[in-house]
Amino acid sequence: MSIVPSILEFNKQFVADKKYEKYLTNKFPEKKVAVLTCMDTRLVQLLPKALGFKNGDAKFIKNAGAILTQPFGSAMRSILVAVHELGAREMLVIGHRGCGMTNIDSGRIVDKMIEHGIDPVSIETLENAGIRMDKFFRGFSKPEEGVMASVRMIRRHPLFPESVPVHGFIIDPETGEIEVIALDYKE
Amino acid sequence: MSIVPSILEFNKQFVADKKYEKYLTNKFPEKKVAVLTCMDTRLVQLLPKALGFKNGDAKFIKNAGAILTQPFGSAMRSILVAVHELGAREMLVIGHRGCGMTNIDSGRIVDKMIEHGIDPVSIETLENAGIRMDKFFRGFSKPEEGVMASVRMIRRHPLFPESVPVHGFIIDPETGEIEVIALDYKE
Repeated sequence: MSIVPSILEFNKQFVADKKYEKYLTNKFPEKKVAVLTCMDTRLVQLLPKALGFKNGDAKFIKNAGAILTQPFGSAMRSILVAVHELGAREMLVIGHRGCGMTNIDSGRIVDKMIEHGIDPVSIETLENAGIRMDKFFRGFSKPEEGVMASVRMIRRHPLFPESVPVHGFIIDPETGEIEVIALDYKE
Repeated sequence: MSIVPSILEFNKQFVADKKYEKYLTNKFPEKKVAVLTCMDTRLVQLLPKALGFKNGDAKFIKNAGAILTQPFGSAMRSILVAVHELGAREMLVIGHRGCGMTNIDSGRIVDKMIEHGIDPVSIETLENAGIRMDKFFRGFSKPEEGVMASVRMIRRHPLFPESVPVHGFIIDPETGEIEVIALDYKE
Protein backbone atom coordinates (compact mmCIF):
# COMPACT_ATOMS: atom_id res chain seq x y z
CA MET A 1 0.00 0.00 0.00
CA SER A 2 1.69 3.17 -1.22
CA ILE A 3 1.75 6.33 0.85
CA VAL A 4 1.52 8.46 -2.32
CA PRO A 5 -2.29 8.74 -2.74
CA SER A 6 -2.64 10.05 0.83
CA ILE A 7 0.20 12.55 0.25
CA LEU A 8 -1.43 13.82 -2.96
CA GLU A 9 -4.79 14.11 -1.23
CA PHE A 10 -3.27 16.02 1.68
CA ASN A 11 -1.32 18.28 -0.67
CA LYS A 12 -4.41 19.24 -2.68
CA GLN A 13 -6.11 20.41 0.49
CA PHE A 14 -2.96 22.20 1.72
CA VAL A 15 -2.84 24.28 -1.46
CA ALA A 16 -6.62 24.86 -1.59
CA ASP A 17 -6.56 26.13 2.01
CA LYS A 18 -3.59 28.41 1.18
CA LYS A 19 -1.66 26.97 4.13
CA TYR A 20 1.54 27.94 2.32
CA GLU A 21 1.05 31.61 3.01
CA LYS A 22 2.98 31.66 6.26
CA TYR A 23 6.03 30.05 4.61
CA LEU A 24 6.42 32.51 1.73
CA THR A 25 10.03 33.61 1.31
CA ASN A 26 12.73 33.58 -1.40
CA LYS A 27 15.62 31.35 -2.40
CA PHE A 28 18.41 33.38 -0.78
CA PRO A 29 19.00 32.29 2.83
CA GLU A 30 17.90 35.24 4.97
CA LYS A 31 20.37 34.50 7.75
CA LYS A 32 23.10 33.89 5.14
CA VAL A 33 23.91 30.48 6.54
CA ALA A 34 24.28 26.96 5.14
CA VAL A 35 23.93 23.89 7.35
CA LEU A 36 25.32 20.40 6.78
CA THR A 37 23.45 17.98 9.00
CA CYS A 38 22.04 14.46 9.26
CA MET A 39 19.00 13.02 7.48
CA ASP A 40 17.74 11.73 10.85
CA THR A 41 13.96 11.84 11.01
CA ARG A 42 13.97 13.38 14.50
CA LEU A 43 15.74 16.50 13.23
CA VAL A 44 13.37 17.40 10.37
CA GLN A 45 11.38 20.00 12.29
CA LEU A 46 13.24 19.99 15.60
CA LEU A 47 16.57 21.24 14.22
CA PRO A 48 15.36 24.44 12.50
CA LYS A 49 13.05 25.14 15.45
CA ALA A 50 15.84 24.62 18.00
CA LEU A 51 18.11 27.02 16.11
CA GLY A 52 15.42 29.65 15.67
CA PHE A 53 15.39 29.27 11.85
CA LYS A 54 12.21 30.06 9.95
CA ASN A 55 11.44 28.92 6.42
CA GLY A 56 13.85 30.85 4.18
CA ASP A 57 16.63 31.36 6.73
CA ALA A 58 19.11 28.70 5.71
CA LYS A 59 20.13 26.09 3.17
CA PHE A 60 20.08 22.57 4.56
CA ILE A 61 22.33 19.89 3.09
CA LYS A 62 21.49 16.52 4.61
CA ASN A 63 22.85 13.03 4.39
CA ALA A 64 23.51 10.04 6.62
CA GLY A 65 25.67 11.34 9.47
CA ALA A 66 26.48 14.82 8.03
CA ILE A 67 29.54 13.18 6.54
CA LEU A 68 31.45 14.45 3.52
CA THR A 69 32.73 11.27 1.89
CA GLN A 70 34.41 13.01 -1.07
CA PRO A 71 35.86 16.48 -1.65
CA PHE A 72 34.19 16.56 -5.08
CA GLY A 73 30.92 14.78 -4.28
CA SER A 74 27.40 16.21 -4.34
CA ALA A 75 27.37 17.37 -0.69
CA MET A 76 30.57 19.42 -1.02
CA ARG A 77 29.33 20.74 -4.36
CA SER A 78 26.14 21.88 -2.64
CA ILE A 79 28.15 23.71 0.02
CA LEU A 80 30.18 25.49 -2.68
CA VAL A 81 27.01 26.50 -4.58
CA ALA A 82 25.50 27.81 -1.33
CA VAL A 83 28.57 29.94 -0.63
CA HIS A 84 29.48 31.17 -4.11
CA GLU A 85 26.05 31.43 -5.73
CA LEU A 86 23.50 31.88 -2.99
CA GLY A 87 25.09 34.21 -0.49
CA ALA A 88 25.83 31.92 2.46
CA ARG A 89 28.46 33.68 4.59
CA GLU A 90 28.68 31.18 7.44
CA MET A 91 28.69 27.39 7.57
CA LEU A 92 27.41 25.08 10.33
CA VAL A 93 28.12 21.36 10.57
CA ILE A 94 25.67 19.74 12.98
CA GLY A 95 25.98 16.11 14.05
CA HIS A 96 23.78 14.55 16.68
CA ARG A 97 23.77 12.12 19.59
CA GLY A 98 22.55 8.63 18.82
CA CYS A 99 23.40 8.86 15.12
CA GLY A 100 22.87 5.72 13.04
CA MET A 101 26.29 6.24 11.42
CA THR A 102 28.02 5.61 14.77
CA ASN A 103 29.73 2.21 14.63
CA ILE A 104 27.67 1.14 11.65
CA ASP A 105 28.18 -2.56 10.87
CA SER A 106 28.65 -3.16 7.14
CA GLY A 107 28.31 -6.92 7.64
CA ARG A 108 24.82 -6.39 9.02
CA ILE A 109 23.93 -4.10 6.10
CA VAL A 110 25.08 -6.76 3.64
CA ASP A 111 22.85 -9.32 5.41
CA LYS A 112 19.92 -6.90 5.17
CA MET A 113 20.60 -6.21 1.51
CA ILE A 114 20.45 -9.92 0.72
CA GLU A 115 17.29 -10.22 2.83
CA HIS A 116 15.81 -7.34 0.77
CA GLY A 117 16.48 -9.22 -2.45
CA ILE A 118 19.87 -7.88 -3.59
CA ASP A 119 21.74 -10.61 -5.50
CA PRO A 120 24.89 -11.66 -3.59
CA VAL A 121 26.60 -11.87 -6.99
CA SER A 122 26.10 -8.09 -7.41
CA ILE A 123 27.73 -7.44 -4.05
CA GLU A 124 30.65 -9.72 -4.90
CA THR A 125 31.00 -8.05 -8.30
CA LEU A 126 31.20 -4.60 -6.69
CA GLU A 127 33.73 -5.81 -4.11
CA ASN A 128 35.87 -7.22 -6.93
CA ALA A 129 35.56 -3.93 -8.79
CA GLY A 130 37.06 -2.06 -5.83
CA ILE A 131 33.81 -0.87 -4.20
CA ARG A 132 34.30 -2.38 -0.76
CA MET A 133 31.17 -2.48 1.38
CA ASP A 134 33.06 -1.95 4.66
CA LYS A 135 34.61 1.20 3.23
CA PHE A 136 31.48 2.48 1.46
CA PHE A 137 29.32 2.21 4.60
CA ARG A 138 31.97 3.41 7.05
CA GLY A 139 30.74 5.97 9.57
CA PHE A 140 32.50 7.21 12.73
CA SER A 141 33.07 6.00 16.27
CA LYS A 142 31.41 9.09 17.81
CA PRO A 143 29.62 12.16 16.45
CA GLU A 144 32.44 14.55 17.51
CA GLU A 145 34.75 12.66 15.15
CA GLY A 146 32.24 12.87 12.28
CA VAL A 147 31.61 16.59 12.78
CA MET A 148 35.31 17.44 12.97
CA ALA A 149 36.11 15.39 9.85
CA SER A 150 33.49 17.38 7.90
CA VAL A 151 34.55 20.73 9.40
CA ARG A 152 38.17 20.03 8.44
CA MET A 153 37.31 18.90 4.91
CA ILE A 154 35.33 22.10 4.31
CA ARG A 155 37.93 24.42 5.84
CA ARG A 156 40.73 22.86 3.79
CA HIS A 157 38.79 22.58 0.54
CA PRO A 158 40.64 24.39 -2.27
CA LEU A 159 37.39 26.01 -3.51
CA PHE A 160 36.01 27.05 -0.10
CA PRO A 161 36.80 30.67 0.86
CA GLU A 162 38.83 31.38 4.00
CA SER A 163 36.54 34.29 4.78
CA VAL A 164 33.59 31.98 5.51
CA PRO A 165 33.72 30.57 9.06
CA VAL A 166 32.89 26.89 9.58
CA HIS A 167 31.47 25.94 12.99
CA GLY A 168 30.82 22.47 14.42
CA PHE A 169 27.95 21.49 16.71
CA ILE A 170 26.23 18.42 18.11
CA ILE A 171 22.49 18.47 18.73
CA ASP A 172 20.50 16.31 21.11
CA PRO A 173 17.76 14.72 18.95
CA GLU A 174 15.31 14.71 21.88
CA THR A 175 15.69 18.17 23.38
CA GLY A 176 17.33 20.05 20.52
CA GLU A 177 20.10 21.20 22.85
CA ILE A 178 23.22 22.30 21.00
CA GLU A 179 26.76 21.57 22.08
CA VAL A 180 29.65 23.52 20.57
CA ILE A 181 32.41 21.36 19.04
CA ALA A 182 34.34 23.94 17.03
CA LEU A 183 33.90 27.69 16.84
CA ASP A 184 35.44 29.70 14.06
CA TYR A 185 35.52 33.13 15.71
CA LYS A 186 36.99 34.81 18.74
CA GLU A 187 34.62 35.18 21.68
CA MET B 1 29.45 39.51 12.92
CA SER B 2 28.75 35.82 13.47
CA ILE B 3 25.24 34.46 13.76
CA VAL B 4 26.41 31.86 16.28
CA PRO B 5 25.99 33.77 19.58
CA SER B 6 22.35 34.53 18.73
CA ILE B 7 21.74 30.88 17.82
CA LEU B 8 23.26 29.67 21.10
CA GLU B 9 21.21 32.18 23.05
CA PHE B 10 18.00 31.17 21.29
CA ASN B 11 18.78 27.48 21.78
CA LYS B 12 19.32 27.85 25.52
CA GLN B 13 15.87 29.36 25.88
CA PHE B 14 14.30 26.75 23.56
CA VAL B 15 15.58 23.96 25.81
CA ALA B 16 14.75 25.77 29.05
CA ASP B 17 11.17 26.34 27.87
CA LYS B 18 10.91 22.64 26.84
CA LYS B 19 9.74 23.67 23.39
CA TYR B 20 11.08 20.35 22.11
CA GLU B 21 8.24 18.40 23.69
CA LYS B 22 5.96 18.51 20.67
CA TYR B 23 8.68 17.14 18.38
CA LEU B 24 9.53 14.05 20.41
CA THR B 25 9.75 10.94 18.23
CA ASN B 26 12.29 8.23 17.36
CA LYS B 27 14.86 7.62 14.64
CA PHE B 28 12.78 5.23 12.51
CA PRO B 29 10.69 7.08 9.91
CA GLU B 30 7.07 6.60 10.99
CA LYS B 31 5.70 6.76 7.47
CA LYS B 32 8.54 4.46 6.29
CA VAL B 33 9.62 6.89 3.62
CA ALA B 34 12.88 8.50 2.54
CA VAL B 35 12.94 11.73 0.53
CA LEU B 36 15.69 13.06 -1.73
CA THR B 37 15.12 16.75 -2.28
CA CYS B 38 16.82 20.12 -2.72
CA MET B 39 18.62 22.22 -0.11
CA ASP B 40 16.55 25.24 -1.21
CA THR B 41 15.80 27.51 1.71
CA ARG B 42 12.12 27.87 0.72
CA LEU B 43 11.51 24.15 1.20
CA VAL B 44 12.87 23.77 4.76
CA GLN B 45 9.50 23.97 6.49
CA LEU B 46 7.19 24.23 3.49
CA LEU B 47 8.01 20.81 2.03
CA PRO B 48 7.27 18.62 5.09
CA LYS B 49 4.18 20.72 5.82
CA ALA B 50 2.92 20.47 2.22
CA LEU B 51 3.30 16.67 2.32
CA GLY B 52 1.67 16.29 5.70
CA PHE B 53 4.87 15.01 7.35
CA LYS B 54 5.41 15.58 11.06
CA ASN B 55 8.75 15.39 12.83
CA GLY B 56 9.71 11.70 12.75
CA ASP B 57 7.81 10.74 9.60
CA ALA B 58 10.61 10.67 7.03
CA LYS B 59 14.33 10.79 6.34
CA PHE B 60 15.33 13.81 4.31
CA ILE B 61 18.43 13.69 2.12
CA LYS B 62 19.15 17.14 0.70
CA ASN B 63 21.61 18.63 -1.69
CA ALA B 64 21.77 21.20 -4.49
CA GLY B 65 19.07 20.18 -6.96
CA ALA B 66 18.25 16.71 -5.50
CA ILE B 67 20.87 15.37 -7.90
CA LEU B 68 22.76 12.12 -7.46
CA THR B 69 26.13 12.87 -9.00
CA GLN B 70 27.66 9.48 -8.22
CA PRO B 71 26.25 5.97 -7.68
CA PHE B 72 28.65 5.51 -4.74
CA GLY B 73 28.59 9.01 -3.28
CA SER B 74 27.25 10.13 0.11
CA ALA B 75 23.68 10.85 -1.10
CA MET B 76 23.19 7.40 -2.62
CA ARG B 77 24.84 5.86 0.45
CA SER B 78 22.31 7.69 2.62
CA ILE B 79 19.42 6.32 0.55
CA LEU B 80 20.79 2.78 0.94
CA VAL B 81 21.19 3.20 4.71
CA ALA B 82 17.61 4.55 4.94
CA VAL B 83 16.27 1.52 3.06
CA HIS B 84 18.40 -1.29 4.48
CA GLU B 85 19.00 -0.07 8.03
CA LEU B 86 16.17 2.28 8.93
CA GLY B 87 13.07 0.73 7.49
CA ALA B 88 12.23 3.09 4.60
CA ARG B 89 9.91 1.17 2.25
CA GLU B 90 9.19 3.92 -0.26
CA MET B 91 11.38 6.57 -1.89
CA LEU B 92 10.40 10.05 -3.10
CA VAL B 93 12.58 12.28 -5.30
CA ILE B 94 11.28 15.85 -5.15
CA GLY B 95 12.67 18.59 -7.38
CA HIS B 96 11.19 22.07 -7.51
CA ARG B 97 10.37 24.92 -9.86
CA GLY B 98 12.90 27.76 -9.97
CA CYS B 99 15.79 25.55 -8.82
CA GLY B 100 19.23 27.18 -8.73
CA MET B 101 20.69 24.10 -10.45
CA THR B 102 18.72 24.85 -13.64
CA ASN B 103 21.12 26.11 -16.30
CA ILE B 104 23.79 26.87 -13.72
CA ASP B 105 26.70 28.78 -15.26
CA SER B 106 30.06 27.37 -14.15
CA GLY B 107 31.87 30.38 -15.66
CA ARG B 108 29.94 32.66 -13.35
CA ILE B 109 30.72 30.43 -10.35
CA VAL B 110 34.43 30.55 -11.20
CA ASP B 111 34.24 34.38 -11.32
CA LYS B 112 32.51 34.38 -7.93
CA MET B 113 35.10 31.99 -6.46
CA ILE B 114 37.91 34.31 -7.51
CA GLU B 115 35.96 37.28 -6.12
CA HIS B 116 35.62 35.35 -2.82
CA GLY B 117 39.38 34.91 -2.64
CA ILE B 118 39.99 31.50 -4.22
CA ASP B 119 43.40 31.46 -5.91
CA PRO B 120 43.02 31.07 -9.71
CA VAL B 121 46.07 28.80 -9.55
CA SER B 122 44.05 26.34 -7.42
CA ILE B 123 41.27 26.29 -9.99
CA GLU B 124 43.74 25.74 -12.81
CA THR B 125 45.47 23.00 -10.84
CA LEU B 126 42.17 21.17 -10.32
CA GLU B 127 41.25 21.53 -14.00
CA ASN B 128 44.61 20.07 -14.94
CA ALA B 129 44.07 17.24 -12.47
CA GLY B 130 40.87 16.26 -14.28
CA ILE B 131 38.37 18.07 -12.01
CA ARG B 132 36.63 20.21 -14.60
CA MET B 133 34.54 23.04 -13.19
CA ASP B 134 31.94 22.88 -15.98
CA LYS B 135 31.40 19.20 -15.24
CA PHE B 136 31.56 19.49 -11.43
CA PHE B 137 28.93 22.25 -11.30
CA ARG B 138 26.68 20.84 -14.02
CA GLY B 139 22.97 20.87 -13.19
CA PHE B 140 20.03 20.24 -15.53
CA SER B 141 18.06 22.18 -18.11
CA LYS B 142 14.75 21.68 -16.28
CA PRO B 143 13.70 20.09 -12.97
CA GLU B 144 11.86 17.21 -14.71
CA GLU B 145 15.20 16.14 -16.18
CA GLY B 146 16.95 16.32 -12.80
CA VAL B 147 14.22 14.36 -11.01
CA MET B 148 14.13 11.64 -13.66
CA ALA B 149 17.93 11.28 -13.67
CA SER B 150 17.87 10.69 -9.90
CA VAL B 151 14.84 8.37 -10.07
CA ARG B 152 16.56 6.27 -12.73
CA MET B 153 19.87 6.13 -10.89
CA ILE B 154 18.12 4.88 -7.73
CA ARG B 155 15.93 2.34 -9.55
CA ARG B 156 18.88 0.89 -11.44
CA HIS B 157 21.31 0.92 -8.51
CA PRO B 158 22.71 -2.57 -7.91
CA LEU B 159 22.23 -2.25 -4.13
CA PHE B 160 18.72 -0.74 -4.20
CA PRO B 161 15.90 -3.32 -3.79
CA GLU B 162 13.32 -3.74 -6.56
CA SER B 163 10.61 -4.04 -3.92
CA VAL B 164 10.98 -0.37 -2.88
CA PRO B 165 9.06 1.97 -5.23
CA VAL B 166 10.74 5.22 -6.32
CA HIS B 167 8.42 8.11 -7.17
CA GLY B 168 9.28 11.47 -8.74
CA PHE B 169 7.63 14.81 -7.96
CA ILE B 170 8.13 18.52 -8.52
CA ILE B 171 7.05 20.98 -5.86
CA ASP B 172 6.17 24.65 -6.28
CA PRO B 173 8.42 26.49 -3.77
CA GLU B 174 5.75 29.17 -3.20
CA THR B 175 2.54 27.18 -2.78
CA GLY B 176 3.90 23.73 -1.98
CA GLU B 177 1.79 22.23 -4.76
CA ILE B 178 3.07 18.84 -5.90
CA GLU B 179 3.18 17.66 -9.48
CA VAL B 180 3.65 13.97 -10.25
CA ILE B 181 6.55 13.18 -12.60
CA ALA B 182 6.88 9.44 -12.12
CA LEU B 183 4.73 7.03 -10.15
CA ASP B 184 5.92 3.58 -9.25
CA TYR B 185 2.59 1.85 -8.64
CA LYS B 186 -0.58 1.01 -10.49
CA GLU B 187 -3.50 3.36 -9.84
